[in-house]
Amino acid sequence: MFAERIQHLTSSIIREILAAAQQPGVISFAGGLPAAGSFPEPDWSVLPTYVKQYGMSEGEPELREAIAADARAKGIRCEANQVLVLSGSQQGLDLVSKLFIDPHSSVLVESPTYLAALQCFRLFQADCQGVPLKANGLDMATFESQVRDHKPRFAYLIPSFQNPSGTCYDQAARHETAAMLDKYGLPLLEDEPYCELDYDNVEKPPICSLLQRAPWIYQGSFSKILMPGLRVGYLIAHPSLIAPLVRLKQAADLHTNRPGQWLALDYLRSAEKPQRLARLQGFYRERRDAFAAALESEFADIAEWQVPSGGLFFWLKLKQVRDTRPLLQPALEAGVAFMPGEAFFAEEQPPLGYLRLNFSHTEPELMVEGLQRLRKVLESA
Amino acid sequence: MFAERIQHLTSSIIREILAAAQQPGVISFAGGLPAAGSFPEPDWSVLPTYVKQYGMSEGEPELREAIAADARAKGIRCEANQVLVLSGSQQGLDLVSKLFIDPHSSVLVESPTYLAALQCFRLFQADCQGVPLKANGLDMATFESQVRDHKPRFAYLIPSFQNPSGTCYDQAARHETAAMLDKYGLPLLEDEPYCELDYDNVEKPPICSLLQRAPWIYQGSFSKILMPGLRVGYLIAHPSLIAPLVRLKQAADLHTNRPGQWLALDYLRSAEKPQRLARLQGFYRERRDAFAAALESEFADIAEWQVPSGGLFFWLKLKQVRDTRPLLQPALEAGVAFMPGEAFFAEEQPPLGYLRLNFSHTEPELMVEGLQRLRKVLESA
Repeated sequence: MFAERIQHLTSSIIREILAAAQQPGVISFAGGLPAAGSFPEPDWSVLPTYVKQYGMSEGEPELREAIAADARAKGIRCEANQVLVLSGSQQGLDLVSKLFIDPHSSVLVESPTYLAALQCFRLFQADCQGVPLKANGLDMATFESQVRDHKPRFAYLIPSFQNPSGTCYDQAARHETAAMLDKYGLPLLEDEPYCELDYDNVEKPPICSLLQRAPWIYQGSFSKILMPGLRVGYLIAHPSLIAPLVRLKQAADLHTNRPGQWLALDYLRSAEKPQRLARLQGFYRERRDAFAAALESEFADIAEWQVPSGGLFFWLKLKQVRDTRPLLQPALEAGVAFMPGEAFFAEEQPPLGYLRLNFSHTEPELMVEGLQRLRKVLESA
Repeated sequence: MFAERIQHLTSSIIREILAAAQQPGVISFAGGLPAAGSFPEPDWSVLPTYVKQYGMSEGEPELREAIAADARAKGIRCEANQVLVLSGSQQGLDLVSKLFIDPHSSVLVESPTYLAALQCFRLFQADCQGVPLKANGLDMATFESQVRDHKPRFAYLIPSFQNPSGTCYDQAARHETAAMLDKYGLPLLEDEPYCELDYDNVEKPPICSLLQRAPWIYQGSFSKILMPGLRVGYLIAHPSLIAPLVRLKQAADLHTNRPGQWLALDYLRSAEKPQRLARLQGFYRERRDAFAAALESEFADIAEWQVPSGGLFFWLKLKQVRDTRPLLQPALEAGVAFMPGEAFFAEEQPPLGYLRLNFSHTEPELMVEGLQRLRKVLESA
């Protein structure tokens, strides 16, 4: 009775864990929630009357202009008519899947990669091919052999402070990746929700700004720098891709909510934007540093990690390799939540022994306690 | 390079006309825009802080409760856990398409039907089979033969004040339709955005409330009774269908914007809701009556129509049958916009000579002038 794709429909383990992780008394390193203390106090009362009426599928013209200006400042050559406002950047994954994926199409992803992207691509019956992430970028030899062997429809990359690994491609890796995409004319979906959450002032030109030939889509979000509850994100597309994406958006939900778009515009054109962003980065930098110190004191002998220069996550590799999925339930019972790393791999037999730990949501004074609970679960399981 | 479905991706003629129709000086009978004067003045300042954070894919628990209570009052047997809050009811079409439609699946639709539903089903490569609408409901003989011949995955019906025809199924038609769906176990997607825009107090039990056996999805919207710019709608699903729909929603955009959900809840639980709705109905009833009078004076000799008991549209049949699509451009040049009827039919060779005219958006004092402009175009073309 259902469509064939429904066989490939999985629930997000993250969103299922979230309910358990939000129980009182649970210290949660599981989600990717921005800290509630980081949200501004918007002045809703100044919302113009026009936000009540139907709007354009492409998004508010002024917001599209502001997003394009911001992107040009990052080096992306684009105009406002290449911008499509989204109902959160998750929607971009849905629209790009519709644009490119037929059943059994191949999609190239980082290994590990964003869980909800895997779910979305698989729902459209894609075969996801992983390319291992190294400390500073992709394993280029595997990248090229995957492209040759599987002829993917596009590559999905999160070059800056990746979820889950925290990896930030260095400049050389960005150039190499762009050259490889150009060599094969392979379309790029560059997803950058964490780009602004940069605590160490890293040089990170968008890969799409380095492309000469390959078509590209760049995605950003207001969820991490403003408020996720608004559900406002955006994509910017190569001129050859924007028209069908706008039509796909139209069929998906007509347009994005206008009060949220207005607040995003208000954020972008605020004179205080640099200070607000610096404050936000300072807030998260402190938490990142506190979590790094807590990890050093509690986990140094049992796991390895890189301190991320941005984003929201530490990615731990246990020295004693084991499947971390069976640890989740005992951890929740012990009052601590984490994300098993296995879920983030495209491979049917994922590498074992990785954990994703979010540092942004937990008060610093609870971090050591949470890690001690987690360590006990690891030791007793 | 693109997925096969992109060959079936069409733009909404409505949304393309909208831009032209909003030029100064154009009297627009084209869109389905609620009158700006009908919108309330919400108190944004009372929005609770929690709306800033990520929310649940299913929607806010209190809003789901309020929607379920409202539906039960209409006769739909349901609980809050069968409610899924949507980013506008267009999103329901996307999710239900994903749930049921494989390439070449058949979908049963009214003839004529909602244009954006046709676009959405076709994007998922459905073959849409039309069943003619009569004055009070479906042509049941054709309905049954279409079900037998094409084994559709579901039936998409808009029983109350249908877009574009204004048709409202009478009680007998609702019972006959439910019995036919039950006979074949055919799932129903019942789309009711206009249900509350009832100017003549019509008895209209939801068809899904009359079903014994067939699975069903009922859709509603806050766009017509509150504000479309919020992009908040909902579906209520048979217990066998709600779990995959929630997962599809999760993959599509994580969840619906929370400020909009909060305002929808505020509307539903307001003590003044009955008075606000009565005021809105009065506002539109006046416009409906003014448009009926204007039509009677300007079009009685060249067209036929039924005065609709609700909704936003008059559906005209020209006495002299002709393709109305070539009239659109001259009409816009003459300062009046309308929707050619041909676009609303699933058939490859649609019936000719229908026009959809919206009466809700135009000030009553401009209606006669707009119709006179349209008549001149008809006469000179």
